[in-house]
Amino acid sequence: MEDIQLTELLGKMTLDEKIEQMTQVTAAFINNEYSGGAVTGPFAEMDIAKVKTSGSGSVLGEAGAAKLNRMQKNYIDNHRLQIPLLFMADIIHGYKTIFPVPLAIGCSWDIEAAEYSAKIAAQEAAASGLHVTFSPMVDLVRDPRWGRVMESTGEDRLLNSLFAEAFVKGYQGKDLKNTDTLAACVKHFAAYGAPEGGRDYNTVDVSERELYEQYLPAYKAAIDAGANLVMTAFNTVDGIPATSNRPLLRGKLREGMKFNGVLISDWGAVQEAIPHGVAENKREAAKKSALAGVDIEMMTPCYLNHLKELVEEGEVEEDLLDESVLRILQLKNKLGLFENPYRGADEETERIALLTETHRERARELAADSCVLLKNKNDVLPLTKSAKVALIGPFAESKDLMGAWSIYGEEKDVVSLAEGMTSVSSSLLTAMGSGIHSTNDYLLEEARQKAEEADVIVLALGEHSEMSGEAGSRSQITLPQAQLRLAEAVRSFGKPIITVLFNGRPLDVSQLLMVSDAVLEAWFPGSEGGHAVSDLLYGKRNPSGRLTMSFPYNAGQIPVYYNHYNTGRPKKSGTTEDRFLSQYLDVPNEPQFPFGFGLSYTSFTYGSMSLSRDTFSQEEPLEVTVDITNSGSCWGREVVQLYTQDVTGEVVRPVNELKDFRLVKLNPGETETVRFHVDTSMLGYYHSDLSWDWDPGAVRIRVGRNSEDTQEKTVTLTKISKG
Amino acid sequence: MEDIQLTELLGKMTLDEKIEQMTQVTAAFINNEYSGGAVTGPFAEMDIAKVKTSGSGSVLGEAGAAKLNRMQKNYIDNHRLQIPLLFMADIIHGYKTIFPVPLAIGCSWDIEAAEYSAKIAAQEAAASGLHVTFSPMVDLVRDPRWGRVMESTGEDRLLNSLFAEAFVKGYQGKDLKNTDTLAACVKHFAAYGAPEGGRDYNTVDVSERELYEQYLPAYKAAIDAGANLVMTAFNTVDGIPATSNRPLLRGKLREGMKFNGVLISDWGAVQEAIPHGVAENKREAAKKSALAGVDIEMMTPCYLNHLKELVEEGEVEEDLLDESVLRILQLKNKLGLFENPYRGADEETERIALLTETHRERARELAADSCVLLKNKNDVLPLTKSAKVALIGPFAESKDLMGAWSIYGEEKDVVSLAEGMTSVSSSLLTAMGSGIHSTNDYLLEEARQKAEEADVIVLALGEHSEMSGEAGSRSQITLPQAQLRLAEAVRSFGKPIITVLFNGRPLDVSQLLMVSDAVLEAWFPGSEGGHAVSDLLYGKRNPSGRLTMSFPYNAGQIPVYYNHYNTGRPKKSGTTEDRFLSQYLDVPNEPQFPFGFGLSYTSFTYGSMSLSRDTFSQEEPLEVTVDITNSGSCWGREVVQLYTQDVTGEVVRPVNELKDFRLVKLNPGETETVRFHVDTSMLGYYHSDLSWDWDPGAVRIRVGRNSEDTQEKTVTLTKISKG
Repeated sequence: MEDIQLTELLGKMTLDEKIEQMTQVTAAFINNEYSGGAVTGPFAEMDIAKVKTSGSGSVLGEAGAAKLNRMQKNYIDNHRLQIPLLFMADIIHGYKTIFPVPLAIGCSWDIEAAEYSAKIAAQEAAASGLHVTFSPMVDLVRDPRWGRVMESTGEDRLLNSLFAEAFVKGYQGKDLKNTDTLAACVKHFAAYGAPEGGRDYNTVDVSERELYEQYLPAYKAAIDAGANLVMTAFNTVDGIPATSNRPLLRGKLREGMKFNGVLISDWGAVQEAIPHGVAENKREAAKKSALAGVDIEMMTPCYLNHLKELVEEGEVEEDLLDESVLRILQLKNKLGLFENPYRGADEETERIALLTETHRERARELAADSCVLLKNKNDVLPLTKSAKVALIGPFAESKDLMGAWSIYGEEKDVVSLAEGMTSVSSSLLTAMGSGIHSTNDYLLEEARQKAEEADVIVLALGEHSEMSGEAGSRSQITLPQAQLRLAEAVRSFGKPIITVLFNGRPLDVSQLLMVSDAVLEAWFPGSEGGHAVSDLLYGKRNPSGRLTMSFPYNAGQIPVYYNHYNTGRPKKSGTTEDRFLSQYLDVPNEPQFPFGFGLSYTSFTYGSMSLSRDTFSQEEPLEVTVDITNSGSCWGREVVQLYTQDVTGEVVRPVNELKDFRLVKLNPGETETVRFHVDTSMLGYYHSDLSWDWDPGAVRIRVGRNSEDTQEKTVTLTKISKG
Repeated sequence: MEDIQLTELLGKMTLDEKIEQMTQVTAAFINNEYSGGAVTGPFAEMDIAKVKTSGSGSVLGEAGAAKLNRMQKNYIDNHRLQIPLLFMADIIHGYKTIFPVPLAIGCSWDIEAAEYSAKIAAQEAAASGLHVTFSPMVDLVRDPRWGRVMESTGEDRLLNSLFAEAFVKGYQGKDLKNTDTLAACVKHFAAYGAPEGGRDYNTVDVSERELYEQYLPAYKAAIDAGANLVMTAFNTVDGIPATSNRPLLRGKLREGMKFNGVLISDWGAVQEAIPHGVAENKREAAKKSALAGVDIEMMTPCYLNHLKELVEEGEVEEDLLDESVLRILQLKNKLGLFENPYRGADEETERIALLTETHRERARELAADSCVLLKNKNDVLPLTKSAKVALIGPFAESKDLMGAWSIYGEEKDVVSLAEGMTSVSSSLLTAMGSGIHSTNDYLLEEARQKAEEADVIVLALGEHSEMSGEAGSRSQITLPQAQLRLAEAVRSFGKPIITVLFNGRPLDVSQLLMVSDAVLEAWFPGSEGGHAVSDLLYGKRNPSGRLTMSFPYNAGQIPVYYNHYNTGRPKKSGTTEDRFLSQYLDVPNEPQFPFGFGLSYTSFTYGSMSLSRDTFSQEEPLEVTVDITNSGSCWGREVVQLYTQDVTGEVVRPVNELKDFRLVKLNPGETETVRFHVDTSMLGYYHSDLSWDWDPGAVRIRVGRNSEDTQEKTVTLTKISKG
């Protein structure tokens, strides 16, 4: 449909029809799909029962070609103007083929693989009838108490921005008219990843400059990559709930970032203006979100019940609604729904295109590359195929490897670690040893027996998938005591202990490190998790994941992240200095494991970093070169990381900032010369007046294997005139 | 001296002499007082060795009439214009008579007693020659990991403001010409109490509105009460170190709060612009602080070495220096130093006026009223005089009861708990049982023997005084394991266990609560600590302290404070609701012990709250009345607390805000009617445009015994025209 036709269509719509487009509910409330009795529970409280026939322009959370095609047909048949429905859902890290959780994908540092995972997710979901995914989540995260860190790629704005762009491109492809794509909805605007105390939905309070400097860039990257939708956040930004926040949405998002797509609220967030205490009632909540520019209200009926009167009474201009509805119609049109409302939904494709061998293979590779080897004392890993292994722990045979936000994935399709290892070793012993939260003497004894029989013990421990994810916040981030007790129980045999962790957040692993010879952080690795981890344990692949979120010593050290400011009394690692420095009495300032950290089965030797010049400028950028050699005995992938520090700024500047990186894959003995370019555009920042620019002065250039292990040289950045 | 004479004096001063006035060092660097060899350590690094003869206009950290009088005489004799020195020091909670730490004083809720404690501190310190105290610290604190919470009165801006005013009045009296007073220096401007991660000196990042709403009011209260000095903070505010922060200091402080007194840096803070990364060198650091309006640089020589060239080269106007110097001269004149440079310093007064019986008595009373009874199962407290008590623990006989920032107090003058209890009971058994951080079998066995002999066990546990205070940050806020082990060791006898805690911060007392029948939080109670706690244990006084800072369940729950915002998905205490609320999976949202909480040996019954009207306005304020009855069996003091909640605001509003309180002292059976007035001025807040005003709408009025245990009625606030 041409743009002009959309405008004509809009002109034919009644006010009620417009407001319907601005409302989104779950499938149960759409015409013939809801067949139950009285609506109860939260739905009833939300007055969703009042949704009328054809009362919504989009639907969330339902999938399946047959069902969605039937729903679409019923809907269009009953719609006066035959406007098709939009089907949206949370396709976060795969549809049926579940990839690792996004935090794990982040740790792969593999932008291309991330994009490909999104492409596969889109192919599968589009075949099942979906049009829009509520992904990527690009919220910057620094607090592992927050359960939803598993849905972010980590604590660095550059990495988050690169992944944001990759996911958007992966989902959307080149053209949304291609029916194997999804429109991407970047979320959660803004700063949802900074809830106070790491408690989900809690207040966010950050300075305006910090918001620009750290939190906004990844949303901007997704929008610049063409994300067609943005979702609002549940939290406040500067004292106003994001979903009611006009300066944030009309100002920073639409004007500042030139976002012209569809802005949708998070679940129920329009109405949450009432408990937040900025609206007295649903009418005021509707008004605030409409004025703020929210196009679609998800799962509450404030728009549906009050927008009409607000327009009729002159409190909201109908022009504002027209803008919103036009954006929604434009999205439907971009997706080709006016020409083909059923789009990619096809039962035959669905049968053959989901969970293909290729999809599984990509999931397996990405899962393996997402795992981070935290400890490997005496090279206890990899295992030999002949070793007699006791696989012990609640995750030994668990299929709970997909993690939160994998609602269409099925446990039956998951490869457990026992299955993965059995495909390599025929002599695997297994025992549960403990549940996630509790154990008993019988389980412990069984575990001890298996441990005694074996040469080496692999402990499969972790958090179950509901201990992270939305509303999965924990004040303590250790493993449950029962699992630590299990670790102690099998330790007494003096056999090597290899711990594999399945979890959705950085954990306090202090106690685990004491009882384990090796620790492999496997996150929630997805459908192919058992194969992927087995590949690493037996050395079929070499661990190469690198943390994108710091691991604190304990919950009392939070927040701890690599790109902090220096303070006026900095304490250097490992020095013994006087008391009056910025430090804790009981733990170091640095995290247990820093950003960028991860071990390998081989070793990489860095040559001396070489700089093309001592002084550089806008006209004469800097080239940084360093030789990387695989000095170990097996193939491996190294993540070569470039950091800078702007020594003096108009405002304080981070002690370290990731600026670039390279994935280098080397055979033993091979050397590769890595080249980085540093130009002034990489060194800008937000000044006290919120202007963005770079300053002349000293810049520390660092190259290394993680944020704490780098070599450094200082250069001077100058502003020279072009004349 | 008349003002005109000060201006004339200023006119006679050379640029060097002006800059000297703007420099402060410790006594060691003043003319004849320093007799050592080469200056080493931090002093040398700070170039203080370069301080010339008479090179500073003020001195910090030295006390004693004889010494200061000699120093003053030498100084004036050598000063071309005979300008006297100013003597400043940290007199934080007493000079020789040490009162409880300020956080404890806060828990007394006794504003008058706080004022009186400051008056006594001033009397003593002035007799020893001091002119200025670096007190009160009024930083709002929400993070018990930060060791310096002991120096604040807590998490509430109203209480902090009232205490700020009281301390200023107590120190300064009616006229600084009275030689038994001190000029007060309020600190640390601004928001020093909000360091990230509770790590001292760390970055502070708060939104501008939150800064106005929560952090600035207490400084303002101190300034309005006449505080003659303000000290800058070590931290950044909006990305700029406070001590270099012109918008903060010239804007918010001087223009916004009309502060005309002396602005002094914290120790070394001018130069810390360099490690903070906003100045390349000391010259730039000097320039930034001078332009920001810092009058005196403490303990670094940036002004001394660079201000002159900055003036001569036109980068800093000499007028700015003249303003600073005039303010310093005015302060010296206010103190009467031009007429009598020796002021209150008098060896004879010093001999008789320090640590008097009256001073000790006031310290004992305030210490007792500062203690908070957290648990008292089966009324195990108070003890009977005849009970055979085993007093066990590292604080049983410890004199480390003064806490941090009591540099002139002496342990020889401290009454230990054993001494206090021995004065009541002749049969007291004592054992150390454990050090602060470690114990051994011998100590544990001795403790068990004493416990076995006794009827009841009093455990005296805690943190030593250097575990809190400046640079005393801890990531974990439990008691050290050795002390918990001791508690377990004496528990097996099944005898009542009463734990008395000596510490400088809210602790995670979860484990202690399990092993203790009663817990009395005694903080660091000061010189008379042993008497005060003994008075409470034996029922000579009745505990009446109420927490002014929340006690979290664990460090992973931080920050937890009573006046938080509501979120869009609030969880009510004790309800079983669905997952998707703002909550942790493992601890409640509420703290272990809330703001305002404290038990008593008697009980207080609250009648129904009565409101004078349902609707109130600027012209018709609201009166709230409630009858309080002592329904128990002994005299007691109750802190009756008035809270409000503004249900809907233009920005989010706290769920609860303390607005007033009354100390009610009642005999058994007595009833008192408490009256509160609520007017519109109590309900204003900072709107999104930073304007301060109140809004019409619903207001919840609450009266109760602590922030969580209140009765509530909702009234309507209206804006009616006066016409």
